[in-house]
Amino acid sequence: MSLTLYYAPGACSFIPHVLLQASGAAFEPTLLKLHKGEHREATYLAINPRGQVPVLVDSGTVVTQIVAICLHLDALFPDAHFLPTQPLARAKALETLAWMNNTVHPTFTHYFMPNKFTDQAEAQAVLKSYAAVQYRSLMEELQQLVQHATQAGQAWLSGSTLGPLDAYALTLLRWGSIAGINPIDLPVLWSHVQKVAEHAAVKTVMERERLVLNLFKG
Amino acid sequence: MSLTLYYAPGACSFIPHVLLQASGAAFEPTLLKLHKGEHREATYLAINPRGQVPVLVDSGTVVTQIVAICLHLDALFPDAHFLPTQPLARAKALETLAWMNNTVHPTFTHYFMPNKFTDQAEAQAVLKSYAAVQYRSLMEELQQLVQHATQAGQAWLSGSTLGPLDAYALTLLRWGSIAGINPIDLPVLWSHVQKVAEHAAVKTVMERERLVLNLFKG
Repeated sequence: MSLTLYYAPGACSFIPHVLLQASGAAFEPTLLKLHKGEHREATYLAINPRGQVPVLVDSGTVVTQIVAICLHLDALFPDAHFLPTQPLARAKALETLAWMNNTVHPTFTHYFMPNKFTDQAEAQAVLKSYAAVQYRSLMEELQQLVQHATQAGQAWLSGSTLGPLDAYALTLLRWGSIAGINPIDLPVLWSHVQKVAEHAAVKTVMERERLVLNLFKG
Repeated sequence: MSLTLYYAPGACSFIPHVLLQASGAAFEPTLLKLHKGEHREATYLAINPRGQVPVLVDSGTVVTQIVAICLHLDALFPDAHFLPTQPLARAKALETLAWMNNTVHPTFTHYFMPNKFTDQAEAQAVLKSYAAVQYRSLMEELQQLVQHATQAGQAWLSGSTLGPLDAYALTLLRWGSIAGINPIDLPVLWSHVQKVAEHAAVKTVMERERLVLNLFKG
């Protein structure tokens, strides 16, 4: 088995990047510079025609999409307990993973890259300000999920080990700090994300990606 | 085990609805009238505070999100082979399921419910027309996936049995016919979707939901 991860610093590729690091397995982290348009170059489009990160190449097979990559890594490394194995607990964890991926994540995209949804500047500005408000309310919903996990006696979002939900929570709040949200205003979520950032695997990946956790400028 | 599915006719709840029907297991299909706002009533919000369908209630536990529900049903009914079990084939199927759910599906939402992204009528019209163009190109991408599956000798999108990708493909092209796409212009995809509609479980669910397959008005 050979594992290569194509990632872009601070992008959602952070989530499988953390899982690979936490697995302890050998893998090749391959940096893609989005600001230089490397994701639109022919060599990368030959790997992923959609031009997105993350891409996991497992022994020659290309797997895209965070949800698919995380589930694949969970299957490859069962001892890492990235996701619960009890069926209903697993379903609830996947429910949150899917929600982060199809609701919270794209709401940030509307703020950060409104040009994906319209080529008209005025409509882009309208989209952006609407998304900023929605994103704040989604961060509150995410904070509630952290509270429920804590009340259920779980150290991490889906159980007793760090998993994709924790790495995603860090990414989403970090993005929120770009979108004008002061993490301090969400104390329970912020405290959890700071704890995630202290996890050894996360620390290594943040250093590799050179990430600053809080980008809020006031 | 008791299984209840909350669904709305023609909505994405169609996908788990088909899997439940195909499983042969007893379940309670529970109709929710979105046009009457039943998803915003207190009784339903008590079940799913996000007010969305589908919801699967498995022995008292509420599971939302298509991806999570489909994976849960795959675990409950392994003999139905809804998803491949070989790890990389499974990862590729989940990649497509995630893409349908986080890319194709929300593009239709921008066309069908632009009010979810802005409260300004002018920007809504702009969003809608941009999404219609994007959706057509995504339907071509979906058609390519059908072609690849056929070339690989697969009767269905993820292998030799009907699964969530097939039910989703039907739903997405049916939505496309609402968005001004004539299914006949995508002959390979249209032919696959017609085959999906002929599957016994799909037929039963389409009758229960009273669905017309092609809503294109020219």
